[in-house]
Amino acid sequence: MSANQPYGKIPEPTIRRLPFYLAHIKLVADIGQEFISSTQLAKDIGVDPSQVAKDLSYVAISGKTRVGYEVKPLIDVLENFLGFSHQHHAYLFGAGNLGAALLHDLGLSQFGLYIKAAFDPDPKVIGKEINGVPILHVDEFPKMMETSKVKIGILTVPVHKAQEVAEFAVEGGLKAIWNFTPVKIKIPSPAIVQNTSLYAHLAVMFNKLQFGD
Amino acid sequence: MSANQPYGKIPEPTIRRLPFYLAHIKLVADIGQEFISSTQLAKDIGVDPSQVAKDLSYVAISGKTRVGYEVKPLIDVLENFLGFSHQHHAYLFGAGNLGAALLHDLGLSQFGLYIKAAFDPDPKVIGKEINGVPILHVDEFPKMMETSKVKIGILTVPVHKAQEVAEFAVEGGLKAIWNFTPVKIKIPSPAIVQNTSLYAHLAVMFNKLQFGD
Repeated sequence: MSANQPYGKIPEPTIRRLPFYLAHIKLVADIGQEFISSTQLAKDIGVDPSQVAKDLSYVAISGKTRVGYEVKPLIDVLENFLGFSHQHHAYLFGAGNLGAALLHDLGLSQFGLYIKAAFDPDPKVIGKEINGVPILHVDEFPKMMETSKVKIGILTVPVHKAQEVAEFAVEGGLKAIWNFTPVKIKIPSPAIVQNTSLYAHLAVMFNKLQFGD
Repeated sequence: MSANQPYGKIPEPTIRRLPFYLAHIKLVADIGQEFISSTQLAKDIGVDPSQVAKDLSYVAISGKTRVGYEVKPLIDVLENFLGFSHQHHAYLFGAGNLGAALLHDLGLSQFGLYIKAAFDPDPKVIGKEINGVPILHVDEFPKMMETSKVKIGILTVPVHKAQEVAEFAVEGGLKAIWNFTPVKIKIPSPAIVQNTSLYAHLAVMFNKLQFGD
């Protein structure tokens, strides 16, 4: 049991939906609305009202009869709950095309993710900075870990290096790998993997485009 | 019925898995292996062998007894099937942080996606180029569509503009929106939406990191 998850483990689909609720509730706050009902939220974003109420019950917020949820506290609770208001430090592995693009400010720091350094074996990029983030030789990673509080590794290496570098990152002490490669990497528990394959999303989009949704 | 989808509509989970198979099969090709069995592929990437065989049956490829699938033709078939070997042109809407990062070479052209122009209302970025892609005033979009073959719009605008710009893009003739905003946008069918919310993935990762997988 934890203060943040009073009702135990939360289903991943709920966690995936909460950022969409948060984005919408911020829009509502921007136009000066003070309360939002689960019915309105549900209608606005196209989710079932009972689903919205259930999802929000996990974050220990309940709406008031008739007026619904108070917008400002709900934003704070959601941001805190989703980890967006904490500082999570990350290292990036692989400063090639995709990695370099991610180093340009994606706005991820608004969501609590701060990339502190990037590692690459290529002498052509080592020593450079992108958006204030230094690119270091990958051999410096273990030394950096001795004094750092970084827990997350962002994996943007070439496909044939993905498994090896993921293992190296976890052996060095990282607890989570945000995997942008299209490789199913395997790392020892309790370290966790979050896959974000832009290419898989592209494939799905191309398919919908050609054959319909 | 279509030449590309001889067995009818393919389940989205299959389409999501195929790019992972493709990435792995390319690795196998790189080390000079000529055949791969569904058993090996399944074991290497941690999917059930019968699932692999079923998924690959959709692309009208069948393995040979004992030796399995011939690697090089399988790569061609998968790339063609997934649309990665075709040229898909796209416009990007919103050249702010996330949009500008996506304009830096993500390597998406290897997967058939070519960003031809970006649109933004901000005079500070209009007229600039990122990675050879011109940033134009958003008012120029309808005119550009008169002579273009672009079908895909990449949506990286601020949250409060997401719905409006998505509608504008579809009214202008785009058929697919790759939505990077955390907003559930609604557009008229047959146009389709592909959501890629980095923030939702971040939330899931933060949660796994804190509470386990």
